[in-house]
Amino acid sequence: MKKLLIQLDTDPHPSAFDTVVAYDAGVDQVLPYAGITPGNVQAMVEGAIFTRGPIDKRHTAIFVGGSSMEAGEALLKAVQHHYFANFRVSVMLDSNGGNTTAAAGVARLSKGMDVRGKRAVVLAGTGPVGQRAAAMLAQDGARVALTSRHQERAQKSCDFLQEHFGIKVEGLVAADTESRSRAIADAQIVFATGAAGVELLDAGQWQEIRSIEVLADANATPPLGIAGTEMGDKGKLRAGKVCWGAIGFGTLKLKVHRACVAQLFDGEFRVFNAASIYAKARELA
Amino acid sequence: MKKLLIQLDTDPHPSAFDTVVAYDAGVDQVLPYAGITPGNVQAMVEGAIFTRGPIDKRHTAIFVGGSSMEAGEALLKAVQHHYFANFRVSVMLDSNGGNTTAAAGVARLSKGMDVRGKRAVVLAGTGPVGQRAAAMLAQDGARVALTSRHQERAQKSCDFLQEHFGIKVEGLVAADTESRSRAIADAQIVFATGAAGVELLDAGQWQEIRSIEVLADANATPPLGIAGTEMGDKGKLRAGKVCWGAIGFGTLKLKVHRACVAQLFDGEFRVFNAASIYAKARELA
Amino acid sequence: MKKLLIQLDTDPHPSAFDTVVAYDAGVDQVLPYAGITPGNVQAMVEGAIFTRGPIDKRHTAIFVGGSSMEAGEALLKAVQHHYFANFRVSVMLDSNGGNTTAAAGVARLSKGMDVRGKRAVVLAGTGPVGQRAAAMLAQDGARVALTSRHQERAQKSCDFLQEHFGIKVEGLVAADTESRSRAIADAQIVFATGAAGVELLDAGQWQEIRSIEVLADANATPPLGIAGTEMGDKGKLRAGKVCWGAIGFGTLKLKVHRACVAQLFDGEFRVFNAASIYAKARELA
Repeated sequence: MKKLLIQLDTDPHPSAFDTVVAYDAGVDQVLPYAGITPGNVQAMVEGAIFTRGPIDKRHTAIFVGGSSMEAGEALLKAVQHHYFANFRVSVMLDSNGGNTTAAAGVARLSKGMDVRGKRAVVLAGTGPVGQRAAAMLAQDGARVALTSRHQERAQKSCDFLQEHFGIKVEGLVAADTESRSRAIADAQIVFATGAAGVELLDAGQWQEIRSIEVLADANATPPLGIAGTEMGDKGKLRAGKVCWGAIGFGTLKLKVHRACVAQLFDGEFRVFNAASIYAKARELA
Repeated sequence: MKKLLIQLDTDPHPSAFDTVVAYDAGVDQVLPYAGITPGNVQAMVEGAIFTRGPIDKRHTAIFVGGSSMEAGEALLKAVQHHYFANFRVSVMLDSNGGNTTAAAGVARLSKGMDVRGKRAVVLAGTGPVGQRAAAMLAQDGARVALTSRHQERAQKSCDFLQEHFGIKVEGLVAADTESRSRAIADAQIVFATGAAGVELLDAGQWQEIRSIEVLADANATPPLGIAGTEMGDKGKLRAGKVCWGAIGFGTLKLKVHRACVAQLFDGEFRVFNAASIYAKARELA
Repeated sequence: MKKLLIQLDTDPHPSAFDTVVAYDAGVDQVLPYAGITPGNVQAMVEGAIFTRGPIDKRHTAIFVGGSSMEAGEALLKAVQHHYFANFRVSVMLDSNGGNTTAAAGVARLSKGMDVRGKRAVVLAGTGPVGQRAAAMLAQDGARVALTSRHQERAQKSCDFLQEHFGIKVEGLVAADTESRSRAIADAQIVFATGAAGVELLDAGQWQEIRSIEVLADANATPPLGIAGTEMGDKGKLRAGKVCWGAIGFGTLKLKVHRACVAQLFDGEFRVFNAASIYAKARELA
């Protein structure tokens, strides 16, 4: 019986990234759907839960993706709303790669480090990766701040994290490299999670801050978010700081992504979300 | 050479149900297309008939699905319109699972019973499943009626059945559980084919009607169409009547669906429509 | 590791033809995307280049298709624009089957013939197949003309060929069978590449022209472009001229299409466009 992954994407096109990774995770057939919302997902869930017998259903799973983590969260909720009794299949949420990227980045940069009490700043942290990274660092005990160009967006993200994960994160407005370098002035951990091609920090700015122990950048398209690092950095020492680039921790991100997808089919009913994906990342880091 | 099923769906998203069942029927690759109409189907048919040699074409087939049986009928006609000489592949029509659900339900409830001359009432019978069930029961010799909340829709369905299958079915208006229980007052066979989550009969109503021998309910989402039955009922005796629930005869429905898809690839040119699917259901029941 | 082909189609539905041929070329999984433009292709390219390690990426490739060769050209350019360093995968352009059809037609009709200095007329040659056939014949040294019903479209195609392939082709206005038979009055080679179901020449017209040595017709839907030939013609002698029909050289077209797709996965970085596809066709003819 084939392992089928129903890939529900909230964007107009299903993510090619997610489909490729699913195949590399051992899925036999991916069924990608685009433009999926809580309003039209019922038919896909029924296709997952009504087509195979109770035991065979372990070979069917659902993946929720797309560029918006907010839309993904809502869709995951809608999928589970259509489950009843044992009419359900394992499901994973990784909109925009947010959960796996955040999990891999945090697992890599904090590996062997006790983050409790340390100050961690997530630069341009209002996107899905940034929010999740903030949540993971906070859950591990760090004092976390995230920055945004806009006060309103910073606040909204902090509210979201409070509400969804029950954690407190400080929101900082930082619209240029100067204000961002001030935001990291006493930080030990810096994680840049900005948009592709936007430089968030000059090289000189972070290199001079003595408190910084480790930096990571989730950006895989040049120019990078943190100038003076490289996307291939794998714990490379630069100006005395441990640096991680998107490609550098991307190997772990892909490994985590594949491992979680593979585990959707191990016979247990699973919901892979931020916390369980982060646990997997720490296990594999 | 891979067995390819070109899944033409008339809805904005291709049915996940149909794709999963196709894989379970042994198809190697399903090629799902959404939003297919007689006006845009030509390219898909050409992709089916012009890509493989005369002998290899036995490994290509077309499946027509979607929520509207009417749109499916029109699409099936359009597909066949683009066939010429031996440039054609086997094709199956099962919009909304209508043909396989009706076939399995009727095959199950009438198994071992001579339905000739018996009165069969299809409740909320204007949808694809209801219409097909009515046609199958009538072809086997039952005196068939279907109910609808609206006179016009009841009549339209009866006209359709007369025109397409050459059978006479009585149309009854029944907008509430009372009028529906009057409609089944002298029936031996009751088949509920209403919308998901709409209760069509109270438990007390059908249990008191002595003529009723067997009831089936195509609804797989609670609340069921026939209160007092369960969707897992597999010929279960309730108040002296044999009861079939959607999950109960769903095993046969899936078996029929898979068997028909598998047979599309057996080397013969086949058109699976209501009659041939019902024949397969009787064979497998 | 599975061979994955990311099929980027510029039309509202991905070409079933291209998907089927890809599977027959040995691709393990085709990932079809519809409605792809330079503006939305980035995510698909990233899915191709960021998901697998440098060595494993040889098992990922991109195919650009759709009904418009112009849109396909622009999309191919956009795909390559997102490549950097060794973050790239092999790619093939065959919008509307234009490259493979033109390549196979020209390779078949000119097989064993020295076309240098000969006059070749591509009838209704402003579409993708016609333009490419004109380019291939011109590159081999023929004096090429293409016809169109409209002066403007003929000129636009000649300009395109001059700009893209650096070749000179004569544009002729020919709106009816009479003017088209005048256009081929002193030709040795005639290739009809008109729309499906449009007759471009009467049988009597071309049969009486003594200079003509070979005719090919890319039309696979009756009525054919060149009356008096048949789509199954495989170098058949008719009125002393060698005739090729679309099905006749379609075997080679499919062979070329499959061979190019297969070669996308041979470990070299490849860009299959008109010239390289034509080279493959000559090799296989």
